[in-house]
Amino acid sequence: MATCLFCEIAAGRQPAAMVHADDLVAAFLDIRPLFPGHVLVVPKQHVTVLADLPAADVGPYFAQVQRIAVAVQSALGAQGSFVALNNVVSQSVPHLHTHVVPRTKGDGLRGFFWPRTKYASPEEAGDVAAKIRAAL
Amino acid sequence: MATCLFCEIAAGRQPAAMVHADDLVAAFLDIRPLFPGHVLVVPKQHVTVLADLPAADVGPYFAQVQRIAVAVQSALGAQGSFVALNNVVSQSVPHLHTHVVPRTKGDGLRGFFWPRTKYASPEEAGDVAAKIRAAL
Repeated sequence: MATCLFCEIAAGRQPAAMVHADDLVAAFLDIRPLFPGHVLVVPKQHVTVLADLPAADVGPYFAQVQRIAVAVQSALGAQGSFVALNNVVSQSVPHLHTHVVPRTKGDGLRGFFWPRTKYASPEEAGDVAAKIRAAL
Repeated sequence: MATCLFCEIAAGRQPAAMVHADDLVAAFLDIRPLFPGHVLVVPKQHVTVLADLPAADVGPYFAQVQRIAVAVQSALGAQGSFVALNNVVSQSVPHLHTHVVPRTKGDGLRGFFWPRTKYASPEEAGDVAAKIRAAL
């Protein structure tokens, strides 16, 4: 099996600018940040996507994401933050990682707001919602 | 105090294509989706940003986000998903909401990957990481 970069970083075998580490989580700077202070929060145990994060780890993992978002905003003097993760599509490293990015009004980040579409009718939206409810 | 749209939806006083509701969380379709099946997951209790979500609610809230991401992907036949929240900047409604968006390769979503920057040196990255550590 190929070596996983984020497992290597979490284990201290690859260098990274570490922000936080505990038994469950490692957090370090993205080397290609959207803005300085862009942190990646990963579970130390290898899981590929959010769906695979064990139920018992979801709370502690996102508690660290929450805590790090506050710290990133404070440390960088930012007005807000962007917290995001990609599952499979647009996921550059196949090890779950949540991005925490400091944001400031007018920073030029267009985010994920374009382009948006719309439902043709309330019925169409209702059908989509019903499909998702059935999959829960 | 002005009425909060997401509080109204969570309380059933404004219409929405509901996907899930329990004591803690409401999940419904974004009316201006990136792609059909784009869901917003909100805590029923009004909190503005992730930092304000009570510690006891973080696990249960993100457990629902995880579960809904799996269901959205399955229901829409998607290859992956995008899970994101904005704190303050780019936050259209000042009530915490996590976006769950189905993704398919080649779907045209550029996501948040451009433009990226880089640190001038490992030392610069180390300084930023140290600032964040100090803020934790």
